[in-house]
Amino acid sequence: MSNQSASSHPRRYAQINVGLLGLGVVGSGAYKVLTDNADAIAQKVGARVNVKRIAVRNLDKDRKVNVDRSLLTDDPYEVIDDPDISIVCELIGGVQPAKGYVMRALGLGKSVVSANKELIAKDGHDAMVEAAARGVDFLFEGSVGGGIPIIQAMKSSLAGNTIHEVKGIVNGTTNYILTRMTQEGAELADVLADAQAHGYAEADPTNDVEGFDAQFKIAILSSIAFTSRVQTTDVYTEGIMRIGAHDIAHAREMGYVIKLLAIGQRIGDDAVQVRVHPALVPVGHPLASTGGPYNAILVRGDAVGDVMFYGQGAGMMPTGSAVAGDILEVCRNMQHGATGRIACTCFEHKRALPVDTVVTRYYVRMYVTDRPGTLSAIAGVFGRHQVSIASVRASAQERAEAIWVTHQVQEANLRRALKELSGIPEVHSIENWLRVED
Amino acid sequence: MSNQSASSHPRRYAQINVGLLGLGVVGSGAYKVLTDNADAIAQKVGARVNVKRIAVRNLDKDRKVNVDRSLLTDDPYEVIDDPDISIVCELIGGVQPAKGYVMRALGLGKSVVSANKELIAKDGHDAMVEAAARGVDFLFEGSVGGGIPIIQAMKSSLAGNTIHEVKGIVNGTTNYILTRMTQEGAELADVLADAQAHGYAEADPTNDVEGFDAQFKIAILSSIAFTSRVQTTDVYTEGIMRIGAHDIAHAREMGYVIKLLAIGQRIGDDAVQVRVHPALVPVGHPLASTGGPYNAILVRGDAVGDVMFYGQGAGMMPTGSAVAGDILEVCRNMQHGATGRIACTCFEHKRALPVDTVVTRYYVRMYVTDRPGTLSAIAGVFGRHQVSIASVRASAQERAEAIWVTHQVQEANLRRALKELSGIPEVHSIENWLRVED
Repeated sequence: MSNQSASSHPRRYAQINVGLLGLGVVGSGAYKVLTDNADAIAQKVGARVNVKRIAVRNLDKDRKVNVDRSLLTDDPYEVIDDPDISIVCELIGGVQPAKGYVMRALGLGKSVVSANKELIAKDGHDAMVEAAARGVDFLFEGSVGGGIPIIQAMKSSLAGNTIHEVKGIVNGTTNYILTRMTQEGAELADVLADAQAHGYAEADPTNDVEGFDAQFKIAILSSIAFTSRVQTTDVYTEGIMRIGAHDIAHAREMGYVIKLLAIGQRIGDDAVQVRVHPALVPVGHPLASTGGPYNAILVRGDAVGDVMFYGQGAGMMPTGSAVAGDILEVCRNMQHGATGRIACTCFEHKRALPVDTVVTRYYVRMYVTDRPGTLSAIAGVFGRHQVSIASVRASAQERAEAIWVTHQVQEANLRRALKELSGIPEVHSIENWLRVED
Repeated sequence: MSNQSASSHPRRYAQINVGLLGLGVVGSGAYKVLTDNADAIAQKVGARVNVKRIAVRNLDKDRKVNVDRSLLTDDPYEVIDDPDISIVCELIGGVQPAKGYVMRALGLGKSVVSANKELIAKDGHDAMVEAAARGVDFLFEGSVGGGIPIIQAMKSSLAGNTIHEVKGIVNGTTNYILTRMTQEGAELADVLADAQAHGYAEADPTNDVEGFDAQFKIAILSSIAFTSRVQTTDVYTEGIMRIGAHDIAHAREMGYVIKLLAIGQRIGDDAVQVRVHPALVPVGHPLASTGGPYNAILVRGDAVGDVMFYGQGAGMMPTGSAVAGDILEVCRNMQHGATGRIACTCFEHKRALPVDTVVTRYYVRMYVTDRPGTLSAIAGVFGRHQVSIASVRASAQERAEAIWVTHQVQEANLRRALKELSGIPEVHSIENWLRVED
């Protein structure tokens, strides 16, 4: 046995008590990690990490983990206000009442660990201000990417970098749906219904399929990456409901897959651009092969270049792993009197640019008149709006269809071109248009 | 401006002085990161991080970065012993004299950052003992995987997990060589010579092509993953020199690529198995698409499942990023009086199992007699040694060749079978055999 540090560097606590708010999927996972690996965790921290109390809504509900019923209470304040509890884990989700609990715990000088992406994206700043004022930790690795250690990596190991871009697949449900649509040639509604029936999608899937879950996550990641607070309202957000089997088939023929991407970019010294939308990704790109419930996040730094992180983006044990990691981090800080060691790093105020200023390539699918001159008329409209065309594929089965892929253009120009095109006689309908991320 | 922590949590230092030992590739990268991003780093740390002195061998050499010549000295003790320098970065490489410098700096109560994989793999324990005794940090993120934040991830974010396996491509030179052999159908000697001519491989490539570089790295990763010190002598090590264009072509036909893998596995409660060798990897596996100079490391934890990290595994700026990240970590610890916060985590003593106990699948390529009964005679020998065959492909161009792929078998049995096969008349020669990692 050679835990040198334990002998030479006296630690402050022999036991650290943790309280959980919530024993759902994430709470159960965190509890299981802390109990399954309790001995090794004690060695690493130099103290027993003890889950002392757990607040639940329903005391009688069946639980996913074996837990001593005497730990349970239906009064969250019995956890928050317990003077023996030093670390409160908020694993409820949603802004209220979670925020009230978090703020109260911080106000009592307790460190808080949360996996609540919505709370952190919308109101995390308030919690960070309070944590800093009290000299405690407010950590939230589990809020993005399940067990993928992306937040600590950006805050610490990559902290020497100027990060230019953070981009990834951060919503498992939509990735599962798009992966199955790609594999099966199926339509979204059918896959979604099946996913709901099997528990892979929520009964109300709005947060996932409309892109809000990804919006929360990219707001958090971008705030850390660009050292400037990105609000959820700064994030241009499109979900996947417009994606048809038809688009996926066309994309595949051109060497692309369609993924819901969350993208944050540093623009110059004083701006950012942050967005969530489906996009065509080349099949050879590392993000393209991220299938099913997996998440992948790519960080581009001025020194490190491209670094990619890949893993299960949700679920009981992966997210429990992240929460447990945060708890260990707090415990180690407590042992050295160093809670609050890494506080809010949003020390800049950057503008968020509108989606109109995005410069990328575009895929446009439309039904057109089937006669000579149609394509050149359409190309002429694109050209008048400075939209340069890389390729066009036209086919006539039931209806004449044209698939355009542009070179890099500014989105404002593309939108103006589409507006004009929707009014010319050669175009029956613009069926869909999507960004292409190379 | 809202760096709340700065106002509410008083920091100890307004400036922290760093000294570098070495201004080669890694030293230049670290210096450039610290100076390019000095303002943001100061915001994150709450202190200016100032490179005060740099020890070099040759004061007059041209440098990859703009550096004030007055910072340079050819006496490393002018860096180590400078009472104003709190953090010493050892970026020289090799065991001696680097170890002497590291031990002296730690003995003086300074934190040390190193990117020296050989020193850490062979003698890191001594440095960690000394660091713990002095209550300072000894960090070495840059020693494995360039800028990929793998060491901190395992020590901290993933610390709640029992890690079962760490596996990856950790040597960029051999990956570059194998990638080019795969793309071009070329022989190793030709690609190696070209890589040397272009500076992608060292004049003496032994450390890379014989697997020693990967051995150092997997010893470090396994020690952290399994909380038990893995010595370099515990690592079974095979390089890539035996790999021919022929093997790569056969592998490809069967849906595999050949990669130099470094693998550490937890075996039961009290043992580990750690090895470096070329292996067949299915083309769909995330490691298979890791091309050129990139590294990819996969960690399998009991809670998190599979997490993969991917990025440039070496080079001035990526490794400089890792060194700078470690420096920031030390600075933040210094600001809270918490150096030594995460010390050595090797609190167990596990046995290292010999390679004979590996259980995996195998690829065996041999020249055989071209007459009836040959394959069944060979299959009979395999069978007598409990080696079950999944497939055999035989061809007769100039010589009759047979390619066998086994089911999962213990390596001891495979080796016994090969020994017997090398003596039977049906087998002219066993040309190569490789492990298959699914």
